[in-house]
Amino acid sequence: MSVTHATGFTAAGLVVGLKSSGGKDLAIVRNLGPSQAAAAVFTSNRAQANPIIWSKQVIGDGIVGAIVLNSGGANCYTGSAGFQVTHATAEAVADKLSISATDVLVCSTGLIGDQLPLDKILAGVTAAELTADGGADAALAIMTTDSRPKTSVNQQDGWSIGGMAKGAGMLAPGLATMLVVITTDADLASSALDAALREATRVSFDRLDSDGCMSTNDQVTLLASGASGIVPAEAEFQAALTAVCADLALQLQGDAEGSSHDITIETVNARSEDDAVEVGRAVARNNLFKAAVFGNDPNWGRVLAAVGTTAAEFDPYDIDVSINHVMVCRSGEPGESRDLVDLHPRAVHVLIDLKVGDATARVLTNDLTHDYVHENSAYSS
Amino acid sequence: MSVTHATGFTAAGLVVGLKSSGGKDLAIVRNLGPSQAAAAVFTSNRAQANPIIWSKQVIGDGIVGAIVLNSGGANCYTGSAGFQVTHATAEAVADKLSISATDVLVCSTGLIGDQLPLDKILAGVTAAELTADGGADAALAIMTTDSRPKTSVNQQDGWSIGGMAKGAGMLAPGLATMLVVITTDADLASSALDAALREATRVSFDRLDSDGCMSTNDQVTLLASGASGIVPAEAEFQAALTAVCADLALQLQGDAEGSSHDITIETVNARSEDDAVEVGRAVARNNLFKAAVFGNDPNWGRVLAAVGTTAAEFDPYDIDVSINHVMVCRSGEPGESRDLVDLHPRAVHVLIDLKVGDATARVLTNDLTHDYVHENSAYSS
Repeated sequence: MSVTHATGFTAAGLVVGLKSSGGKDLAIVRNLGPSQAAAAVFTSNRAQANPIIWSKQVIGDGIVGAIVLNSGGANCYTGSAGFQVTHATAEAVADKLSISATDVLVCSTGLIGDQLPLDKILAGVTAAELTADGGADAALAIMTTDSRPKTSVNQQDGWSIGGMAKGAGMLAPGLATMLVVITTDADLASSALDAALREATRVSFDRLDSDGCMSTNDQVTLLASGASGIVPAEAEFQAALTAVCADLALQLQGDAEGSSHDITIETVNARSEDDAVEVGRAVARNNLFKAAVFGNDPNWGRVLAAVGTTAAEFDPYDIDVSINHVMVCRSGEPGESRDLVDLHPRAVHVLIDLKVGDATARVLTNDLTHDYVHENSAYSS
Repeated sequence: MSVTHATGFTAAGLVVGLKSSGGKDLAIVRNLGPSQAAAAVFTSNRAQANPIIWSKQVIGDGIVGAIVLNSGGANCYTGSAGFQVTHATAEAVADKLSISATDVLVCSTGLIGDQLPLDKILAGVTAAELTADGGADAALAIMTTDSRPKTSVNQQDGWSIGGMAKGAGMLAPGLATMLVVITTDADLASSALDAALREATRVSFDRLDSDGCMSTNDQVTLLASGASGIVPAEAEFQAALTAVCADLALQLQGDAEGSSHDITIETVNARSEDDAVEVGRAVARNNLFKAAVFGNDPNWGRVLAAVGTTAAEFDPYDIDVSINHVMVCRSGEPGESRDLVDLHPRAVHVLIDLKVGDATARVLTNDLTHDYVHENSAYSS
């Protein structure tokens, strides 16, 4: 049920004709309250789409009544005409729901540089029927090259969190090419939501680095209706929210464009968490290692060559690397035979022991495959 | 004639049995003097192969009598046993040529983590016959996945420079996966050679970024015999050396593993050269853009998304992007139709106009292809 699992929300997902595939391409999620507290995090890319520019203004006061999302076009690098499309979309949703346009977030995803057909969007907004079980349709409507919708629910005692995500490529920190909407009926102020969302995304979406590419349109939004009347403890809410974000991140990894392996890079005994993340990212972005995994080749030399490009503290000649629990490099020298490593399963675990501290981090990535190249060499959806 | 074009050098390239292909795999280049001035630049990867560790010691005094290079194994992450192989190889060459082992550079290239068979190398050193026309064989012997040898010659009035290079993947700054030996019969001190070599590599090999991956074994070596008796002017020598390095870099780009396009990313009107290089590199490392070029898709949105990840000074909404001389993005908005861009030729030119200064830089890269993935998914040579 995704975004309509928590009480106080309605949603819709419908076909308005933006996608060449003819699939659902417009979603609206409404927060019926009583609270309309919200928080959002945005791509750190300096090239930002028009809906990002708009939504950053809207989220300023921490109050959001609705969010409208479209696939079939990113509305990025489309100039002032593109910004007017975003603005008009927010106005139409506001009119329909009798709220202020300055309380309507907008998200778009798809090809950069093409204008969206405003008339189709406005007709869709008019036609949309928001219902208390519309979450599934909304999750379908935000898909681009995703092969399946991504949703997650975390039910607590008397309150809950639900969410939907889209994203299948360009998954990289700050954030991935993804749109995420998470709803909760917990009663929390926007400042608390903001802090919890930043912590949750830091250890989930921000550590998913499918292909090193950063989008212009990423947005993760958290809406709280307060309809449960419950104010959960900070730690309790954080744990539930992080669980939902981590679950959605794993679903994004598992559906990454053309991938045949889900790779978890776990760096342990680092001097700092930042060091551990830097090492994990360097390996996650190493095309040679990722191509080797595609070929079921446990080429640990490429792991070490990637680690060597970082500024993390470690001794290059006292480092252990295990692949799928076979220690192929021990103290910087050949360890167990690489022939013992079985890379046929989709899940791959790379353990890098830096031996200089006690910090740990996991970074998620995928392999580099023929299908990745194929899907991204003629992207037009 | 590569490294034996300049007078005062002999070379050999022969089969010693390191490569599974049975091809030539050991090269030796000797400087007969009268000068033995030398300079070298090394990979900035912190994971450094045993020959790199050795060669950094040798180059310390700026005197080099010979360089020995092998393909068929990187001798990296092979521990103290691996270092002994490097040391013994240098000793054998020194004995053969009646020079000091501390004047013998060693380079290795191939798979990380396997020990080299020292007996085969020593037998090869004994058998090698160095001749004044051995440059062609030496250029063949350093090849790994290269499809052809890379050599360059620059003939000046009374003196000359010649060089050879190998490298077909893992081409990235600091440096590429490459070994380069350049010889000259100009008479210059090692300090002058060092300054000239650093300037030449800075604008050539360091701006070749085929796949964002950095090797553990890269070394570019410049040997000067002084046999011409001529001391060229600094600017004259710099121009000739840079021309040889740039020519070899273009040959490396043109033979990059699996590539079907050579992409030149030219960033103009940047605030600084560093900014221009950062922008070029960000685009050069964007898998999505590189896959699009493979598919002959002028996806300029991916160029802008990559530029947006940099810290370079620019206004995201006042930037022009041209692909093969069609301005597809003008002042941050759609420009000429992308249908006007013809990406069928191998050479692709991307022009990014930041409009904030007068600095320029070119970064060279390749597209991301099925064949790149294929070749690197089962690399074993």
